[in-house]
Amino acid sequence: MRRFVIVGHRASTTGDFKLDDVCGGAGRLDVLLRCVNSSFFLSHSLRRDVEAFLVMKGGEDPPKTLRFVGDGLRYLNPDERSTASLVRNALLRKVGDEEVGSSPGIFISRMDLGDVLEKLAEVSEIIYLKEDGEDVRDVTFDGDLTFVLGDDRDLDEDEEAILKKYSARSVRLGPLSYHSDHCITIVHNELDRRQ
Amino acid sequence: MRRFVIVGHRASTTGDFKLDDVCGGAGRLDVLLRCVNSSFFLSHSLRRDVEAFLVMKGGEDPPKTLRFVGDGLRYLNPDERSTASLVRNALLRKVGDEEVGSSPGIFISRMDLGDVLEKLAEVSEIIYLKEDGEDVRDVTFDGDLTFVLGDDRDLDEDEEAILKKYSARSVRLGPLSYHSDHCITIVHNELDRRQ
Repeated sequence: MRRFVIVGHRASTTGDFKLDDVCGGAGRLDVLLRCVNSSFFLSHSLRRDVEAFLVMKGGEDPPKTLRFVGDGLRYLNPDERSTASLVRNALLRKVGDEEVGSSPGIFISRMDLGDVLEKLAEVSEIIYLKEDGEDVRDVTFDGDLTFVLGDDRDLDEDEEAILKKYSARSVRLGPLSYHSDHCITIVHNELDRRQ
Repeated sequence: MRRFVIVGHRASTTGDFKLDDVCGGAGRLDVLLRCVNSSFFLSHSLRRDVEAFLVMKGGEDPPKTLRFVGDGLRYLNPDERSTASLVRNALLRKVGDEEVGSSPGIFISRMDLGDVLEKLAEVSEIIYLKEDGEDVRDVTFDGDLTFVLGDDRDLDEDEEAILKKYSARSVRLGPLSYHSDHCITIVHNELDRRQ
């Protein structure tokens, strides 16, 4: 199982944004939407052995986390607008202490980054995608993996402190700094080659 | 200089589609929009040494080719909707025998795949991204490169015949079959590592 945790620093946590304005009005939700695409899509199929977590910290009702589960996903299309619609539907759900299902394979909860990693650290190694880390091609991976990355902003000090708590290894993907969704594509390609 | 040529088999060649419906109404234009994103975007910058060609074969007025030139690009944002708007503006231009500028760094012409490759073969090697090609990590590249790929459909026999004319080498990116925009991201990463 591969897992990706993407931190949306300003991403809307209410469903009152317009689908025509996912960049500005929804706090750069567009970045997270592209991360969902690159987490799951193969040519003419979906990666069923993947989970993606969008940790949304912006808007009026933070924190919220959307969990996408490849094994159960339906109605996911590769374009940004239709994924934004799925995200909006989830954000319109009433969420209490328990995670709530929104549509097949999509769940929403009140988890923040610390809660998400606390759960995932029990079942997988935590990897921090960071420009000054070890080159991914030189890293030996073992077992289940969780990759953590920011949206259009790097993780802040508090978020990095959470990663440190779980002894996250820092891994870099190349000599340049890439968009988050491109990072996920490169990670997948590297791991595909090892299987 | 890196160049990407993406063949949009059903992509609209008129500007009368809705920005809310770039998948269906515009002939899977969404695939091409994501290819523009992955061709040019780095974290907080654009790749200036890249050209992307969208060869559009669908709709009512084919063929048309949109050329995006990294060195002159302005007003390009990473989201699909705003890029769709730039594409639509270009398609609304009247195009005769000569290429026409639409917005900074974006040009439109009547070229088809054969015309595009005839030009590019003079200045670069042509590479065909195909699942049964040689592994990209084992390939030695020299000089300027042009990578050719389909949208959500593979190249057809006629298109492959054009590639053959220019002795295109077939190159694969991994053990799985990826979306076109993901292919471009993987190519960039491989070439970034060699520079």
